[in-house]
Amino acid sequence: MSLPSLRLKANADRRLRAGHLWVYSNEIDVAVTPLSGFQAGDQAILEAAGGKPLGVVGISPNNLICARLLSRDTKHELDKSLLVHRINVALSLRERLFDQPCYRLVYGDSDLLPGLVVDRFFDILVVQITSPTMERQKDEVLAALVQVLQPRGVLFKNDSAARDAEGLPRYVETPFGVVPEWVALEENGVKFEAPVIEGQKTGWFYDHRMNRARLAPYVKGKRVLDLFSYIGGWGVQAAAFGASEVFCVDASAFALDGVERNATLNGVAEKVTCIEGDVFAALKELKASEERFDVVVCDPPAFIKRKKDIKNGEAGYRRLNEMAMRLLSKDGILVSASCSMHLEEDNLQNILLQSARHLDRNIIMLERGAQGPDHPVHMAIAETRYIKSLTCRLLPNA
Amino acid sequence: MSLPSLRLKANADRRLRAGHLWVYSNEIDVAVTPLSGFQAGDQAILEAAGGKPLGVVGISPNNLICARLLSRDTKHELDKSLLVHRINVALSLRERLFDQPCYRLVYGDSDLLPGLVVDRFFDILVVQITSPTMERQKDEVLAALVQVLQPRGVLFKNDSAARDAEGLPRYVETPFGVVPEWVALEENGVKFEAPVIEGQKTGWFYDHRMNRARLAPYVKGKRVLDLFSYIGGWGVQAAAFGASEVFCVDASAFALDGVERNATLNGVAEKVTCIEGDVFAALKELKASEERFDVVVCDPPAFIKRKKDIKNGEAGYRRLNEMAMRLLSKDGILVSASCSMHLEEDNLQNILLQSARHLDRNIIMLERGAQGPDHPVHMAIAETRYIKSLTCRLLPNA
Repeated sequence: MSLPSLRLKANADRRLRAGHLWVYSNEIDVAVTPLSGFQAGDQAILEAAGGKPLGVVGISPNNLICARLLSRDTKHELDKSLLVHRINVALSLRERLFDQPCYRLVYGDSDLLPGLVVDRFFDILVVQITSPTMERQKDEVLAALVQVLQPRGVLFKNDSAARDAEGLPRYVETPFGVVPEWVALEENGVKFEAPVIEGQKTGWFYDHRMNRARLAPYVKGKRVLDLFSYIGGWGVQAAAFGASEVFCVDASAFALDGVERNATLNGVAEKVTCIEGDVFAALKELKASEERFDVVVCDPPAFIKRKKDIKNGEAGYRRLNEMAMRLLSKDGILVSASCSMHLEEDNLQNILLQSARHLDRNIIMLERGAQGPDHPVHMAIAETRYIKSLTCRLLPNA
Repeated sequence: MSLPSLRLKANADRRLRAGHLWVYSNEIDVAVTPLSGFQAGDQAILEAAGGKPLGVVGISPNNLICARLLSRDTKHELDKSLLVHRINVALSLRERLFDQPCYRLVYGDSDLLPGLVVDRFFDILVVQITSPTMERQKDEVLAALVQVLQPRGVLFKNDSAARDAEGLPRYVETPFGVVPEWVALEENGVKFEAPVIEGQKTGWFYDHRMNRARLAPYVKGKRVLDLFSYIGGWGVQAAAFGASEVFCVDASAFALDGVERNATLNGVAEKVTCIEGDVFAALKELKASEERFDVVVCDPPAFIKRKKDIKNGEAGYRRLNEMAMRLLSKDGILVSASCSMHLEEDNLQNILLQSARHLDRNIIMLERGAQGPDHPVHMAIAETRYIKSLTCRLLPNA
C-alpha cells in the first residue's frame, strides 16, 4: 500500500471511533503530517496520534472538513473495485425496497461514498460529485456505474454550490450514452418526467417519496393546494390519488410546464390548475378571494442554508405556514415540510403550534414523515438527516 | 351556567394559552378557590388571575395535575352532547384514514377527551377511563358511544395503574351488549383476534400499525425474529407479508397461544414458530446455537415508566438491542421500537449506534417510524407522543 499517512492529534480519533466519518483540519497533527503536503483529492491512511491506522481517507486540504473516511479497512483504497462493491451494497437495499428502479441509488456518506450522489431513473443515472476525491475518481465512478447497472445514459450534474467551496468547477455533461431532456420515473405508482438537465438538483426529489405516498387517504375527494410545487411531485400525486381539484403554485413557468406535462401523463390534467407567481403573493391573493382548501401542502426550498440563517429562516417558515393555515377549510389538513437540515423537527412543530394558536385554531399532529429509506441516515452524522414532513389536522377551537 | 370557578395564579395561564391542557396544583390561587372545595370529577370554569374565563376543566383535587381543560368554550361542559360531538370529530378522521373500522377511535387529550381512550374492533369498543371527571361521566360516555357507533358490545377495561393515582377503583365490565373473549380486527390487510378482556391494555396495540405496514419490503423471503411478540402483531404480519420463517418470542404462554391463533387465521401457521421464555434468556440460547436472522423486530414493553428509571431503562435498551444485533445476518435489518415516552428518539438512535460500533458493525438508519395517525400527537403535550420505531441496516464494517 503506497498511500501516505495523515496523523491525528491526541484523542482526535474519538469521534471517528464512535462512528463519524469526518476529520476537521484542526484535528490534524500538522507537525507530523502537514496538510500542505497534500493535493485536493489525494487519499491517505488516517492514523491516530499513536500511529494506529484507522482507515483510508480522501483529502480536501483547504476545507474545514479536511478528510472523509472512505473505508475503515486500510487495504481498501477508493478505486473502481471499492466503488463497484459499495454500489452493489447500495443497490441491494434499493432493489429490496422498491418495485421500480427509480430511487436515490447512492446517498454520500450514508452509503460510505462521501461526495457522491446518484439518482436512478430507470436506465438513466444522474450523478452529483461534491468532493475532490470523488472528482478525481470520476472515470472510475462512471466505469463502476456502467458495470453494475448497464445504463442507457449517465449525466454528471456537477453544478452545485457545494463544489465552489471545494474549488471544483461547475459543469453538466453526459459522459456516457444518451440522456434526454425529460426523463421518465415512477413514484408511488404515479408516472412522472423530470428535467434532469435543466431542473433543480438532479431533476427530482425522491426524498419525499414516502411522505407523498401518505397523502392518499387525506386527499381523496378533496381540494388541494400545493405550494412550491416544482413539477408536481405532491400535486400530481394528490390528483392521481383522487383529489377533486389541485392547485399548484410555483414561481417558475418552466416548473409549471412540468406540472402540466406530468398531470397529462396521468390523465388528471383537467383537475390540476397552475398558478404562476411568488408563493407569498399567491397566498395573499387566494386569501383575498376567500379561497379555501381541504389540504395544503407546504414544501418550500430550504429557508435555512447556514446556521446563521436560523432566526430569519424560522421567521420565514412561521409566516409561510401561518398564511397556509389561513386558507384551510374548517376541518383542514396541513402537510408542512422542510428540507433545512438546520431546522429541528421540534422547532417546526413549535412553529405550527404557535401559528395555530395565533389563529385560534386547534391543531393535532397526525404524522411525522422523514426522508425515504433510499436516503439512509448515517447515525453519527446529523447532516445526513434533513427532511421533515408534519401532517396536521386543524379544527376550530372549541 | 352553574359551574364553580377555579382561579389561577398570575401568569399561570401562559402554558394554557400556548396550547397546553393541563393545570398543576401549584398554579391554583388556593386563597381564592381552594382545591379542597372540590370533589374528584367536578367540573369548573378555569379563570386567569384577573378573572378572565379560559374554559371548562375537569378537576382532580389530589393530583399534581389537578385540572385538565375539557373545552376552551365556557358554554361547553363535558356532558353527553359534548361527548357525541368530540367522538364524531374523532371518528371522521379515522374513517378518512382507514378502510376497516379497526383503530384507536379516541386518544385522550389529543382528541380533547382527557382521560378517555377507546379502541374500536369493528363493532366492539374497548374503553379505558383514567380521570375522575370521565369516570363520573361514564354513563354519558357509554350513551354517546352507543349513539354514534351502534356497537355490538362495549367493554370498560378500567384496570390500568393510572387509575390508582387518581383513587379510582380497578374493574373490568361489559356495560353494553356482548364482548367475546377474542375479538376480531384487521390491520394492514392481515386478520387478527385480540384478547380484549384478558390481554394487555385494550388487548391490541394499534399504535404500531404504520411501522408494521413498513415491514413488508424488508421481510419478503427472509427469516424473521419477533421479540416480545405478544399475540403476533409484528410476527404474523411479517409471515403474511411473505417472510420465509418467523420466530416469535414471549414469556407468556397465553400470548403465544394468540400468535398460533392469529397465524392460523392467516394461513401462515407452518411458517411461525413460538419460543416461550424470558427474551434475554432466549436471545442467549439463540446466540449459543448460532442462529441468525435477516430481520429482528425488537418491541419491548416500556423499560422506562418514570423519569427516575431513565438510566437503568436506557441500559436495558442497550443490552437488549446489542443482543438482538448479535443475531443478525451479515446484511441484517433491525427494527428497534420503544414505547417509553421518557426515551428520546435521539437517545434510542445513539444506543443503536453505540451498540453497532461495539460489535464493529456499520449501521445506517432507513426509517424513523412513529405512532399512527389514530394516536394523534397533541402538539403542546409531549406526553402524547411516545412511540418510536427505528429501522436500521447493519453491515460488516469495511
